Amino acid sequence: MARELYFISGSPPCWSVMLALEVKGLAYTPRRLDNAKREQKSAEYLAINPRGQVPVLVEGDVTICETLAILSYLEAATPTPALFGSLPVETARIWQAIFDCDGNLREPVGQISRPSFRGKAIEAAEQIKEAAETVRDELALYETALSENEWLAGNSLSAADLIVFPVIMQLLRAVGREDAAPLELAIYPLADHFLNLASWVSRIEALPGYDNAYPPHWK
Amino acid sequence: MARELYFISGSPPCWSVMLALEVKGLAYTPRRLDNAKREQKSAEYLAINPRGQVPVLVEGDVTICETLAILSYLEAATPTPALFGSLPVETARIWQAIFDCDGNLREPVGQISRPSFRGKAIEAAEQIKEAAETVRDELALYETALSENEWLAGNSLSAADLIVFPVIMQLLRAVGREDAAPLELAIYPLADHFLNLASWVSRIEALPGYDNAYPPHWK
Repeated sequence: MARELYFISGSPPCWSVMLALEVKGLAYTPRRLDNAKREQKSAEYLAINPRGQVPVLVEGDVTICETLAILSYLEAATPTPALFGSLPVETARIWQAIFDCDGNLREPVGQISRPSFRGKAIEAAEQIKEAAETVRDELALYETALSENEWLAGNSLSAADLIVFPVIMQLLRAVGREDAAPLELAIYPLADHFLNLASWVSRIEALPGYDNAYPPHWK
Repeated sequence: MARELYFISGSPPCWSVMLALEVKGLAYTPRRLDNAKREQKSAEYLAINPRGQVPVLVEGDVTICETLAILSYLEAATPTPALFGSLPVETARIWQAIFDCDGNLREPVGQISRPSFRGKAIEAAEQIKEAAETVRDELALYETALSENEWLAGNSLSAADLIVFPVIMQLLRAVGREDAAPLELAIYPLADHFLNLASWVSRIEALPGYDNAYPPHWK
């Protein structure tokens, strides 16, 4: 069955879905939308998703919006390799890690990356420094988790890793910029501050299909 | 095994979990925290959930934070009656409806209920009217869905219904107050404006165990 994924390059949720597709070995046609042209708000795309958001997965006559709905669908349709655990308590840990990221990491990373990607890191220095403090607290929790297990929610790669990873990559891209260096955010390079997390990034980067999911405009 | 649920009366996510426990026929000990006393930020509770949020489910030595992680856990541990569908496409629809609510309904309802519950409906009239417009758009989508199916995400009660219902009840409690009446928000009484949705509310209210989950301080 034809499988298409509508995405915007560099969007962490889109990247998460692409990684899940690769991990599960599911072929798909990428349909890239150009955020600069606001293609996600075009009449053509609004006919697919009236909310004008990405990612959207289309499989035959099934259209699924919302990242975690897509991941749940992929898990139900293609249960192995499992991304949401097998024991109930594993499932719980994985979802909890996902919502921990959504509720506590995603927004402060956005507060750093939005001004930084627009070359406004110095102007937004105070906002960025404050957000970086929250981010470091969250990264410290990951660092502890990764001292106990190889992956964020246990001893197997899970949806939690695939959700968190693109957010971390967005963060590193933002704080690794030359103009962010004077802010001394104590995050970059990651291995200097969060060694377990840096190893975890390397493990994700070594996944088969990793390159296929990498944001085209970052290459 | 002893099962405890930490909750705040009237909190929609807590209510969702309580409804799920009732629907699945799972006994539990309710542990009510007093928001007025900020008991969720007490040292005792922070030892259970360092983020100081509710709901939290404790089962023996397992502690689960985050509403949807708890629902996913209950589904995995007690699969029937199913709250996340059985076919992959059903699972997708249910999760999509949950995130539609989280992303589009919860916040505008909060913009109405927060000032309203503090008796500030008139002072916040502009904010409330603007939020009500968004809310009515979302309710209209539910109204259409419920013209096709008995429940929000298909022909069976699902987690989507249990997530959306307390948000709708919070909304009705806010817009049904005497001081909100002059704002003419065209939501209350629900049956005058969204008939299918009003019938759906009645169906939820008729669920076995409904009364056990009803917010104590609303009684």
